[in-house]
Amino acid sequence: MDYLALAKKYQTPLYIYDFDHITAQYEKLKKEFNARKSLICYAVKANSNLSLLKHIATLGGGFDCVSIGEVKRALLAGASSYKIIYSGAGKSDEEIKEALNLDILMINLESFAEMQRVELIAKELGKKARISVRVNPNVDPKTHPYISTGLHENKFGVSINEARKIYLHAHRSDNLDPVGIHCHIGSQLSDISPVIEAANITSDLLRELRAADINIKFFDIGGGIGIRYSDENEPNLYEYAQGILAALKGQDATIVCEPGRFIVGNSGELLTQVLYEKNNGDKRFVIVDAAMNDLLRPSLYEAYHEIIALKDGDKTNCDVVGPICESGDFLGKNIELPKLEHGDMLIIKSAGAYGYSMSSNYNTRGRAAQVAIESGKDRLIGKRESFEDMIQNEREFI
Amino acid sequence: MDYLALAKKYQTPLYIYDFDHITAQYEKLKKEFNARKSLICYAVKANSNLSLLKHIATLGGGFDCVSIGEVKRALLAGASSYKIIYSGAGKSDEEIKEALNLDILMINLESFAEMQRVELIAKELGKKARISVRVNPNVDPKTHPYISTGLHENKFGVSINEARKIYLHAHRSDNLDPVGIHCHIGSQLSDISPVIEAANITSDLLRELRAADINIKFFDIGGGIGIRYSDENEPNLYEYAQGILAALKGQDATIVCEPGRFIVGNSGELLTQVLYEKNNGDKRFVIVDAAMNDLLRPSLYEAYHEIIALKDGDKTNCDVVGPICESGDFLGKNIELPKLEHGDMLIIKSAGAYGYSMSSNYNTRGRAAQVAIESGKDRLIGKRESFEDMIQNEREFI
Repeated sequence: MDYLALAKKYQTPLYIYDFDHITAQYEKLKKEFNARKSLICYAVKANSNLSLLKHIATLGGGFDCVSIGEVKRALLAGASSYKIIYSGAGKSDEEIKEALNLDILMINLESFAEMQRVELIAKELGKKARISVRVNPNVDPKTHPYISTGLHENKFGVSINEARKIYLHAHRSDNLDPVGIHCHIGSQLSDISPVIEAANITSDLLRELRAADINIKFFDIGGGIGIRYSDENEPNLYEYAQGILAALKGQDATIVCEPGRFIVGNSGELLTQVLYEKNNGDKRFVIVDAAMNDLLRPSLYEAYHEIIALKDGDKTNCDVVGPICESGDFLGKNIELPKLEHGDMLIIKSAGAYGYSMSSNYNTRGRAAQVAIESGKDRLIGKRESFEDMIQNEREFI
Repeated sequence: MDYLALAKKYQTPLYIYDFDHITAQYEKLKKEFNARKSLICYAVKANSNLSLLKHIATLGGGFDCVSIGEVKRALLAGASSYKIIYSGAGKSDEEIKEALNLDILMINLESFAEMQRVELIAKELGKKARISVRVNPNVDPKTHPYISTGLHENKFGVSINEARKIYLHAHRSDNLDPVGIHCHIGSQLSDISPVIEAANITSDLLRELRAADINIKFFDIGGGIGIRYSDENEPNLYEYAQGILAALKGQDATIVCEPGRFIVGNSGELLTQVLYEKNNGDKRFVIVDAAMNDLLRPSLYEAYHEIIALKDGDKTNCDVVGPICESGDFLGKNIELPKLEHGDMLIIKSAGAYGYSMSSNYNTRGRAAQVAIESGKDRLIGKRESFEDMIQNEREFI
């Protein structure tokens, strides 16, 4: 890729997404479930760019959404409403209402109290809400505590017992239609055995529900397939799929899978320009024009992103930091890079997931531009945020 | 304050700023320096709302800015250009150019390489750039590592030796005018003795520079005055001011001080509504409509914010969490609250600084509305972000 040409054309910092890689990742996963009815619902929160969503919709993908905003993004990008799932631990009345009116595939419930709200609102609208229940199987996913979600100490889902209660209530309700069962235990998993364990627990409940004449059609095993940032193991997709199929033990259900990071993580890079090099004492800093407002993961999760320079030279140790006024503003610590000068380019790898989607205007910095690469051609898919954009909701009041 | 009326009028989540408290904090600090020429430059990054900046400008305040976006915000809000300082470890050429054209008070330099860029750009524009140098005195501020900035292991400022080099070069340059000296060692300091220590080190350099006929007019001791989130000591402002005056040892200079959190931290609250209560095992969760995209501090710094309910009742332990799909999305852990129901209101205290300014659209959640309270009256100063706002830079490309 001609990064220098891209930097010249679109300026920096710049998010670059490889749509062909997205296609490849999507197809790789879809293929593993070929023998069965399956629906890959891309987790929009990982990267919600509208053109990127459109690309996934074109591939036949569905969408796992966690706010009504994400549902609207998916629809705007051309998604079929019957391929949209709406999950999330805290849906407001307004969001539930909109989701019901948009007639999406199902609303994923996370508590008995939430079921009651959905039932009430569906009744008011004269509708029957298709729902699934997020089961919290109390399985340790062995990942970063902030993205671990399948333990009882997490806010997500309900226990098996609570799930039973919800299904039985929903089954008898005129305004609820239980069509799915769901579990998701965490993100960025290298070891898939906890997912299989969770799938087995969930499948047992599925069998029990069917015995009670509750006709669940969708078996949603969530997302969480890890990717390689540095030297992590990438889960074997064949074993992953076979493990889930085995867990189903012959029960007929459409398998739903909700990959986010797996699809887009290594499909994206953040291109940034060196502003200055400086040494404080023995410590070498490379100050670049991207910052924690562009990519929060290093600061928030102490996440590692590979950073490479576009030029050669003897490498020494440095921290790559942004212009934001706090020491928490770093993109990489203890990175080996050649001597750099004003204007040199760095590529921050694996920035396709939880990069732009978590970005902010901290320090009144406009968010980066976003570019797609497809079949060797580049095109703008997100304009750089301007100063006018940043003040538009405040200007009229001064 | 009638929170219920505010929630009804503006919806939730809602940032509420008490402008009278801002006035009181500003005046309290200004008063301590009454005997000397002084300039309180509010640190815009803490809260950059345009109406809030206008309020501070009306009080006579100047502005400490860390991006050209912040400089423009200050000017738009009515600041005098001669009361604006532009700091930050990574200024781009374009930002330096704009700052010079806007003729602000001074540009605060953070490296020799940066001085060279400023000199070059000033030359191209036929200007003489007023500059100061940020000295890194290698003093431990004893605060959170992410907001500690005065050690050599931090990216900020230059050593005393490097500062000497910059001043000597600038003094001889046709395009640089060294008018200030600056140090800032960290944020949210409970103990001010490190600030006084840093002021003494900086003052010694000031004396030395003046002996070399370099006529520094502004002695900028940065910000960092801590506030009370829970039971922290609040620095004694009299001792703080007297310590700085003593450090100056009779040298004539305008004292510049850059408070951010001190002015706005406890002037702001985040009002949020309860969506659901749920128990997972023994663990109680209160799920509210505000989330880490609204207030990142608990998740990023493990910062404590007091959270109070608007209703009474026997209190039990719970986590207050948002609707965002990760376990890192919490606003408070181990908080004592009464039993709550859908629609009940919670107030998250001390949210005026680094609240809205760090907020994002993560999970496609629009940013909160912002309201000012002044003399008992409320008014909107920032509209709630709409779905259309969030997609405006992407829509045309699908």
